[in-house]
Amino acid sequence: MIQKPRGTRDFGPDEMLRRRQIESIMRKTCRRFGYREIATPTFELTELFTKKSGEGIVNQMYAFKDKGERSIALRPELTAPAIRFYVNEMQSLPKPLKLFYFGNCFRYEEPQKGRFREFWQVGAECIGGKGEAEVMALAVKMLENTGLKNFELRIGHLGILRSVIGDADSSVMMLVDKKNFDELKEKIDEEKYKKLMKTIYLKEEIFEDKEIDNEYLEELKNVLETLKLFGVKKYTVDLSIARGLDYYSGIVFEIDCSDLGSEKQVCGGGTYNLSGLFGGEEIDSTGFAIGFDRVMLALEKQGRVFDEEKLDAYIIPMGSKARKKGIEIVTMLREKGIRCDADLTGRSVAKNMGYANSIGVKRAVIIGEDELKEKSVTLRDMKTGKQEKIPVKNLIKHLKEEK
Amino acid sequence: MIQKPRGTRDFGPDEMLRRRQIESIMRKTCRRFGYREIATPTFELTELFTKKSGEGIVNQMYAFKDKGERSIALRPELTAPAIRFYVNEMQSLPKPLKLFYFGNCFRYEEPQKGRFREFWQVGAECIGGKGEAEVMALAVKMLENTGLKNFELRIGHLGILRSVIGDADSSVMMLVDKKNFDELKEKIDEEKYKKLMKTIYLKEEIFEDKEIDNEYLEELKNVLETLKLFGVKKYTVDLSIARGLDYYSGIVFEIDCSDLGSEKQVCGGGTYNLSGLFGGEEIDSTGFAIGFDRVMLALEKQGRVFDEEKLDAYIIPMGSKARKKGIEIVTMLREKGIRCDADLTGRSVAKNMGYANSIGVKRAVIIGEDELKEKSVTLRDMKTGKQEKIPVKNLIKHLKEEK
Repeated sequence: MIQKPRGTRDFGPDEMLRRRQIESIMRKTCRRFGYREIATPTFELTELFTKKSGEGIVNQMYAFKDKGERSIALRPELTAPAIRFYVNEMQSLPKPLKLFYFGNCFRYEEPQKGRFREFWQVGAECIGGKGEAEVMALAVKMLENTGLKNFELRIGHLGILRSVIGDADSSVMMLVDKKNFDELKEKIDEEKYKKLMKTIYLKEEIFEDKEIDNEYLEELKNVLETLKLFGVKKYTVDLSIARGLDYYSGIVFEIDCSDLGSEKQVCGGGTYNLSGLFGGEEIDSTGFAIGFDRVMLALEKQGRVFDEEKLDAYIIPMGSKARKKGIEIVTMLREKGIRCDADLTGRSVAKNMGYANSIGVKRAVIIGEDELKEKSVTLRDMKTGKQEKIPVKNLIKHLKEEK
Repeated sequence: MIQKPRGTRDFGPDEMLRRRQIESIMRKTCRRFGYREIATPTFELTELFTKKSGEGIVNQMYAFKDKGERSIALRPELTAPAIRFYVNEMQSLPKPLKLFYFGNCFRYEEPQKGRFREFWQVGAECIGGKGEAEVMALAVKMLENTGLKNFELRIGHLGILRSVIGDADSSVMMLVDKKNFDELKEKIDEEKYKKLMKTIYLKEEIFEDKEIDNEYLEELKNVLETLKLFGVKKYTVDLSIARGLDYYSGIVFEIDCSDLGSEKQVCGGGTYNLSGLFGGEEIDSTGFAIGFDRVMLALEKQGRVFDEEKLDAYIIPMGSKARKKGIEIVTMLREKGIRCDADLTGRSVAKNMGYANSIGVKRAVIIGEDELKEKSVTLRDMKTGKQEKIPVKNLIKHLKEEK
């Protein structure tokens, strides 16, 4: 047997149904907010990602040479491709430009629980305009609308963080982000460290701190106020969010779901400027990425009830004449939008009932000799076992009555 | 500027909307037929594809070594992964097992018009059972339901073809498939060639040919009869369809759309046995793949009218107080499922009208000082230019009236 590659997944019908349901809810929410979908290639030139994230990322990507000796990589995330697309083709469009995308990404690291080599992200970008509060509201509503519970939005501001620790290199920012304060203490001077400790635990109630640059604090306050108008009243200010990467500039935010244990972050985002880095005009964007697989995992842990995909009808013909009638009926029902199937193998009623039970069927439609003569069918409710003979011409009406 | 890789595409919002619309129609049709969706990884072990299609395919794939020196490849098609998944995990499920899938595939050849290095396929498999006619009906209905016109289903049978030319090697089958009869004539003996010429032009009306193995002819006749019961009355018998690959065994079919010029095939499929090849139990499947990009191209050429994605409302607040009210209103409308947006930048009404026109908006909702005082808004129909002042509490009702 040939196996699937290490760290990848196959999705069976039940799981795909759940994933498509949640994907559809998220897409609908984005569209309601006026965001429009785009898609970019599955692989990009490697330099797109090294430019954004540094050379180090090459070791975490599926990067390879194509026949023209160009270095290409399976995308590790979707923001860089989206902004590349913007720079190449959409710079002249009116602002704000609101985009979302849904796609698979790849990481090349040892597979571990809940982290796969191919994974799915859904993200949104508000390019231009003052999108910070609305983008956070969109992320929250997308998660809320899926039925996710126990998640927490944490909001920070890199301007405030940087005004405290100065132009720190990215290793320092990483330590802040990981809340690794012991190591951090050794890396920066004592005064800065004290100020930092004071700052990152600053709560909204005590924003009147005079030591912090007022411009950024004012911006954060405005965003939080607007966020409430957008209906998001539950959040925490967390000024230790650093997001590690240099291109973030202002508001940064993360959403955790406490039911997920150590890999609990389901969303991360903020305001950044990537357009300039990719050769476009400088423009601020606010965007985020939601880890679709983690959301699915959390929903399943929380016992969310998903849609079922039962056949509305399964037609069981007895004999070859009935088989022809069965195909005609199944074709007619499908034309009317009814989800149904018919046995084509000629097996016994008992075997067909077993099959119908195993695949999930609401009603069996049995066609025997009597039914053929009478232009009727026997309708059997697969849950209650109740049977009734009805004229073929009434079948659609009966099937459309929701049970 | 960093470009997208050669032969790949970015899809903007208008195009994505059209693609999602057609994808959704196809998915709905599959589900109506009782097919259920699965998904497999974007890359597979290279041997999966060489086992199915021969070593030659390596040159047409994005194949590379991973860090464990395993040879992996971006999938060139979706049938092999689907059957691998079946062999690994679904063999014990009741038959027939009806599956469909939608995904991106990759080919590594010189990009040319209408052929991209990353392309999309939608396919279905009926594993076990006697699925030939129904599978063809599904392919036809999927295309029909998208609104595609001018397409033709051609049906052949490899058993018949093989009974005429014997156990020909695949290069001979390829010549038949390409209808390259001059070259073929030199490759096979004269008697066979004569018989072949007679066979491949055989039409349904003259099926009583005694020289052809009756078992296969009988099978083809039965399938065609069943196909009509499934509502497909337009098709052509074409016994020259060879599909090139060894694992096809019985019925084979192709669908062309004449509006596409030389690259006119939009669907190909047939009955085959891949399960055994991949280490599973031998079982016949009938399946097909539809070239999603070609269908999109054909629909656009045929002038199909697609859904539009206009905002139901765009809220234009004048001044900061109105801005707050605007955000409250846009939030309230979104909760009710209305697709809308609000200006957050504070620009002039004239500029906002320009923006609304350029992004596509059904109605503008203007909030000035008077409106704030009166708890009203001014509703402007962006097509007719007609304006009316209405109470905020009546806004949803007005917006839900379809214009």
